[in-house]
Amino acid sequence: MADFWNTSTDVIIIGSGAAGLSAAIEARQAGAFVRVFEKRPVTGGNTRISDGGLSAPDNFMQKQQGVTDSPQRFCKDILRAGLGLNHPDLVDLFARQASDAVDWTRSLGVRYTARLDQFGGHSVPRTVTIENNAGHTLITAMTNRLHQLGVPIHTRHTLDRLVTDASGRVTGVCLSCSEKTSAAAPDSGTDISPCRIRHIRADRAVVLATGGFGSDVAFRTCQAPRLDDTIDSTNHSGATAEGLTAALKIHAMPLHLSWIQLGPWGCADESGYGKGARFAAYSVFPAGILVDPFTGGRIVNEWADRRQRSDAILNAGHACIGIVDHTGAQKEVDSLASCLKTGKIRQFDSLSDLGTAFNMPAESLEQTVAEYNLWTTCPGPDRFGKDPKTKTSPLETPPFYAIRLWPKIHYTPGGLQIDTRARVMDLSHRPIPGLFAAGEVTGGIHGAGRLGGCALPECIVFGRIAGRNAAATG
Amino acid sequence: MADFWNTSTDVIIIGSGAAGLSAAIEARQAGAFVRVFEKRPVTGGNTRISDGGLSAPDNFMQKQQGVTDSPQRFCKDILRAGLGLNHPDLVDLFARQASDAVDWTRSLGVRYTARLDQFGGHSVPRTVTIENNAGHTLITAMTNRLHQLGVPIHTRHTLDRLVTDASGRVTGVCLSCSEKTSAAAPDSGTDISPCRIRHIRADRAVVLATGGFGSDVAFRTCQAPRLDDTIDSTNHSGATAEGLTAALKIHAMPLHLSWIQLGPWGCADESGYGKGARFAAYSVFPAGILVDPFTGGRIVNEWADRRQRSDAILNAGHACIGIVDHTGAQKEVDSLASCLKTGKIRQFDSLSDLGTAFNMPAESLEQTVAEYNLWTTCPGPDRFGKDPKTKTSPLETPPFYAIRLWPKIHYTPGGLQIDTRARVMDLSHRPIPGLFAAGEVTGGIHGAGRLGGCALPECIVFGRIAGRNAAATG
Repeated sequence: MADFWNTSTDVIIIGSGAAGLSAAIEARQAGAFVRVFEKRPVTGGNTRISDGGLSAPDNFMQKQQGVTDSPQRFCKDILRAGLGLNHPDLVDLFARQASDAVDWTRSLGVRYTARLDQFGGHSVPRTVTIENNAGHTLITAMTNRLHQLGVPIHTRHTLDRLVTDASGRVTGVCLSCSEKTSAAAPDSGTDISPCRIRHIRADRAVVLATGGFGSDVAFRTCQAPRLDDTIDSTNHSGATAEGLTAALKIHAMPLHLSWIQLGPWGCADESGYGKGARFAAYSVFPAGILVDPFTGGRIVNEWADRRQRSDAILNAGHACIGIVDHTGAQKEVDSLASCLKTGKIRQFDSLSDLGTAFNMPAESLEQTVAEYNLWTTCPGPDRFGKDPKTKTSPLETPPFYAIRLWPKIHYTPGGLQIDTRARVMDLSHRPIPGLFAAGEVTGGIHGAGRLGGCALPECIVFGRIAGRNAAATG
Repeated sequence: MADFWNTSTDVIIIGSGAAGLSAAIEARQAGAFVRVFEKRPVTGGNTRISDGGLSAPDNFMQKQQGVTDSPQRFCKDILRAGLGLNHPDLVDLFARQASDAVDWTRSLGVRYTARLDQFGGHSVPRTVTIENNAGHTLITAMTNRLHQLGVPIHTRHTLDRLVTDASGRVTGVCLSCSEKTSAAAPDSGTDISPCRIRHIRADRAVVLATGGFGSDVAFRTCQAPRLDDTIDSTNHSGATAEGLTAALKIHAMPLHLSWIQLGPWGCADESGYGKGARFAAYSVFPAGILVDPFTGGRIVNEWADRRQRSDAILNAGHACIGIVDHTGAQKEVDSLASCLKTGKIRQFDSLSDLGTAFNMPAESLEQTVAEYNLWTTCPGPDRFGKDPKTKTSPLETPPFYAIRLWPKIHYTPGGLQIDTRARVMDLSHRPIPGLFAAGEVTGGIHGAGRLGGCALPECIVFGRIAGRNAAATG
């Protein structure tokens, strides 16, 4: 077997999003030699294109703003959105360590805006956002630290398979690399001899951090046939299932693969994640209403979780209209300005004009808004179960803004079963020796659906755990 | 490798429920030599203990009774209950062949009662029931036919693993057999030499028909943590996941494993399937109401699908009371008589007495029933979406009967992906050569939830397809 391996290291990390890089930093800091492999030409995965929201109970911003929260409360919100499919031990661990994860990013130099958002399904405002909504700055901070630590990141390396020995222990990986890497990619290590197929031995362990399968049309259609290629995705094109399936092939336990999350804030008039989505997520849903243009009426609690809101729009069968007034629009002025230019958001002097523009039944929108505004002055929940909070204000200050919303595939909460040590579990409920996983490739934490702002802290919490335990594997 | 195999046959069938035996009959009739292996001491799996209901559009009883139906209508009902997770091509095939499956059982000598039931989620009455609710007579008919055909059924043989060659083709199975079989079990073939581990070569193909995992607490808790050992199951104790996982280990595609169906008609005062469940399924839900004892009010459309009804009871957090009057109780007099003796069903002269016995708020039950009875005279749906049908009659004829209902795990709609030829699909969306599957071990047909009476016809439809195609494998 001496010829089988091209090279070796202590810990191999597959994937360079927030989970993989967190694992790499911790593994190196624990004394292991580490290599990170990324299949795309650039590092960062979906973290790079994310809006940079991190939800965590008792985070520094909540403390600054005097918001009371607790890990127990966070757990309860997560379990409610997950419909009880969540693995309670993972949720508990995540909730207790999420705030630490935020602080850790600050120690890496990541800066946050002064805002504290409350997204659908969260019972208090607990989401902090990286400055300029720039998820990529988290990746930059992490890759800078890895550079300091001397950890090579090899781009353009795709996982072909996990290599196991006769006992089932993961001993390394088989990777395909593209030509350009062999020549020398910008942030690629240059100490591996050029070849197309590389076998790398892991003397301690392998950490899978390959992300979700939101862009894998064949795989997701298999799990949920209606989510075919007519449904857009917010994910980068590399969000495919080969990391997940590599682990399934060595008998990892799959969890919740058919629970594929759609983002209700997907804008029907742009492709991918886009800026319209940001306006909808940060402004329309927290401060506005969602209306079915066929009736002019609301269809859902705009603060419900993503699954409930997406289902409401899908059940309507056509794009619905997110509406916010001038006051509410101030929560997201940058994306508003950008989207008004491109026509993704339209501006109206009156609700009447807005209703007419979308062919709503005459005066229906005015009635809907009048009823809504009346409710904002009342103590109890409305008929959709929406609870009035102190921040709610009536929709009354023109101009009014409208955006057409149609859900997009955003996140795959299902994946590999892990335990609280981030060990990948097999079909017989035992850990697979030598294999850890973290981030969207795993399942069980979010169950039926993930709350907003929970992906990045989850990647960091479990990425760090995976990295530390991989380094400690003997 | 000559020593590796203990013996060989053309087609190996694993499992002896309706799916496995249907496959065995068809494979033998297509000219193949066939062996059936069953892990338990008795044949029949869950089919043996089922109530023997078969739902099929355009079946012979519908024709006798003049009920209009169609495969398209059946598809629509199935897709609605499956929340669109169903694989449409499988649903379409199933709906078109279900009535043939019923006729085929009649050709084997199975007899049906004159009743035609409409279960929750079905839009018309389309369920026929084997005489005396005796699923085991279907097994007897099938084993009789196999005896005529000379097909051996080896009991007490558990599948350890599927054997594949270097190309990934399934070439046989490895089985463990218990001591008693080696001695000679009643319906076991005696031509295999006694040993604990047996390798059987399949010269054409293997058909997996190992059923669901409703009794596999570890596996189901992994997929849905709340379904732990505090929740009873209607399944036999052998309904575990080893057949499913044997296929996953050779890279079969898993579907919908977390969608585990609970039977809303589970009786809180008996273990397993029981006779109370039959009374609830055939009498209470079709002709009565379901009431939360804490409020005295109804909680759900009693004709909704199983998932909706089970969720309603689980959300109540305690057993709810199924109530039917004397008229409605005539639909299931045998189980009524039996359950009155054992106290699983209680009889009351008045609604007032019934409400008092379950500590319902004073007069709440009378109000609930008065409202319900009024609705039975109205044309539209009630507030739960329940549609009045011609058969609905008011609850007014004493005595009244009450049964405490708490859902039980009944069926696992998830499992292995198959195509319309019953070939097992792999993680790369290609059929696994030499491997077919049918029945509850497969997934994709029912999606999020199965309608009542659909398991047996599905086993027969896909079992027959699997058997024919296995026999035709070269």
